[in-house]
Amino acid sequence: MIGLGLIGGSLLRAASTVGRQVWGATASEADATAAAADGFDAATDLEAALCRAAERDALVVLAVPLTEVDDVLRTVAECAPRCLLTDVTSVKSAVLAAVRTFAPRTRFVGGHPMAGTTESGWRAGNAALFGGAAWVVCVEEDTDLPAWADVARLALDVGAHVVPLPAAAHDEAVARISHLPHLLAAVLASVGAQGGPLAMALAAGSYTDGTRVASTRPDLVRAMTEGNREALLPVLDEALGRLGAMRGSLASTGGLAASITAGYEGTQAFARVREGTPTGVRVSLGASDAREGLRALGERGGRITAITDDDTAIGEVA
Amino acid sequence: MIGLGLIGGSLLRAASTVGRQVWGATASEADATAAAADGFDAATDLEAALCRAAERDALVVLAVPLTEVDDVLRTVAECAPRCLLTDVTSVKSAVLAAVRTFAPRTRFVGGHPMAGTTESGWRAGNAALFGGAAWVVCVEEDTDLPAWADVARLALDVGAHVVPLPAAAHDEAVARISHLPHLLAAVLASVGAQGGPLAMALAAGSYTDGTRVASTRPDLVRAMTEGNREALLPVLDEALGRLGAMRGSLASTGGLAASITAGYEGTQAFARVREGTPTGVRVSLGASDAREGLRALGERGGRITAITDDDTAIGEVA
Repeated sequence: MIGLGLIGGSLLRAASTVGRQVWGATASEADATAAAADGFDAATDLEAALCRAAERDALVVLAVPLTEVDDVLRTVAECAPRCLLTDVTSVKSAVLAAVRTFAPRTRFVGGHPMAGTTESGWRAGNAALFGGAAWVVCVEEDTDLPAWADVARLALDVGAHVVPLPAAAHDEAVARISHLPHLLAAVLASVGAQGGPLAMALAAGSYTDGTRVASTRPDLVRAMTEGNREALLPVLDEALGRLGAMRGSLASTGGLAASITAGYEGTQAFARVREGTPTGVRVSLGASDAREGLRALGERGGRITAITDDDTAIGEVA
Repeated sequence: MIGLGLIGGSLLRAASTVGRQVWGATASEADATAAAADGFDAATDLEAALCRAAERDALVVLAVPLTEVDDVLRTVAECAPRCLLTDVTSVKSAVLAAVRTFAPRTRFVGGHPMAGTTESGWRAGNAALFGGAAWVVCVEEDTDLPAWADVARLALDVGAHVVPLPAAAHDEAVARISHLPHLLAAVLASVGAQGGPLAMALAAGSYTDGTRVASTRPDLVRAMTEGNREALLPVLDEALGRLGAMRGSLASTGGLAASITAGYEGTQAFARVREGTPTGVRVSLGASDAREGLRALGERGGRITAITDDDTAIGEVA
C-alpha cells in the first residue's frame, strides 16, 4: 500500500482483517508512525516497500493523491517495474496515461472505490469503509483479465461490489455524481457564508447536507476536479445551463416548475435504480469477449458481486 | 391550527404534548381523518375552527403552503378578524403583505420554524420536530410586543429557540441557506440523472447528500422559492457567478484553488459560529427600544431561549 491516508489506511486495515499479508509506505511521517503504532507494517521508505513487492509478486496499490502519482510511478518503474499495480484515485484516464508514460511495463488495472468521508489521514480510516460500496475496476481494450480478476478480488474481499468500466466512462460518470457535487457544495458554502452569522444561525438540514463535502481538505478536492478537467467541463456547463435557466424563468415569468420538477424526477429515477430487482449475470473471464461483457455490464449500471475459483464473474444488473 | 401537514401536524402534536388545548382544520380530508384517528380535534371545517378561535381568543397558526395563504386569510377576516395570528411558511415578506391586504385587523406576528423533512402530510409529522430548531418570530417596526411574546412562547414551548428578525432580513437569509440549497439540489439531481443507470450506480455520499432535498414535493419547493423571488434572484446571481468563475478558471488555467478554498472557508466559518461560546443577553419586552434590541440580537445571529413571567427575553449571541 503506497499512501496511508483515509483510503490507503482503510484498505490496509480491511485487507489485513480478511487475512491478506499487507505492508505500507507513505511520505507522511505522521501517518507511518500512527499506522506502526496500531501494529501495522508501515514506514516511510517507499523504495523498500516496492522492492519487497517485486520480490514477492505482490499487488501494489497506489493510494496517493493524483498530484503525487507521477513521482510514485517513477519509483515503481525503478523498484518493481513489472508488478501488478492498481490505484484508488478518483480520476482514471489521467492515471492510465501516467502509467503508460512512467511505468509502462507494470500490469496495471485502474480502480476507484466510491467511498470516503470528509476526513483525511491514517487516523480517519477504518476497515469497514468499503462495505457495500461500489468499486470501479477498469477494463480497457488491452486489460489483462487475470490481473483484472486479482484487483477485483481485493475489492470484493473488503466488502465492496465491483463495477467494470473503461476509464473514460468512469470519469464522465464521476464528474456528474462526485466532482460536480463537490463544486456545488463549495458554491453553496461560499454564498451561505456571505450571509454572515444570521444566515449561519438559521441554517438547517438543507444547508448542512448541501455543504457537507465542502469541508473536505481543499487540495484533495482540487486534485480530483482539476485532474478530471476534460470530463468535468461539459458537466459544469450542464449545471450552469440549468441554474441559468432557473434564474431566467424566476426573473421573467417567476415560475420554476420545470426546473424543480426535473430535479424531483431525477431523485425518483435514482430511487428506482436503487430499489429495482436485479437480474443475475455471469461473465466467464476466460471467454474471448469477456472484456466486452464486463464493460457492457458496468455501462448498464450493473455490478460484480463474486468471482468463482474457475474465474467466472457473478453479477447483477437492474 | 390551519393546515395539518408536516409542519402544522407536528406543531399540533407538540403543542398538545406540552399541555396546550389545540384544534385543527385542514382542506385535506386525508389529513383530517388521520389526525382525528390519532385522537386529535381535527376536521375540514375551516370556518368552524376559526369561529371557535375568535370566541376563545386563541392563537391561530397558518400552516398552509404560501399559495393558499390569501384564501385562508379571507376566511380569517370573516370569522376571526381580530385574532392573534401567526404562520409557519418559509417566506415572511409575502405573508406580511397578504395579511395587510386580506386580514389587516388581526394581531399578526410572522413566524418560521427552520425544521422539516422531505416528507409531507399528517403522517410525516412528529411532536419532536422542533426540538433544537431555530424559529424566526418576526419583529417589524409596528409589531405588538405582547403578541410577539405569545407567539415566541409557543415556539419555546415546543423546544425551539427564537430568532427575532424583520421579515426582509429573514427572507434574504433563507434565500441563501434554504432556497438556494433546494435549487442546487434540483440542478444536481437533474445533471446526475442525465448520466443514466451507470452514474446512479456509482453515486455515493456526496451525491445523496447533495440531492436529498430535491425529493421534496415539487409544489412545496415552488411555493417557497417563487414566493421569495425578490430576495432569491440576487442570491441566484451570486451562485451563478461563482459557478461560472469555476467553469472559467477550469477551462483556462485549469485551476480551481480559489473557488474550492472559498467553499472550505465557508464551512469553517459555519463551524466557528456553531461552536462559539455565546454571551448572555436580556431584553425587557416592556422597554421602549425592545423591538430594536430584539432585531439587533437576531441580526447578529443571536437567539432567545426563554421569556420570563415578567416579560424579559433571555437570549444569547456568539
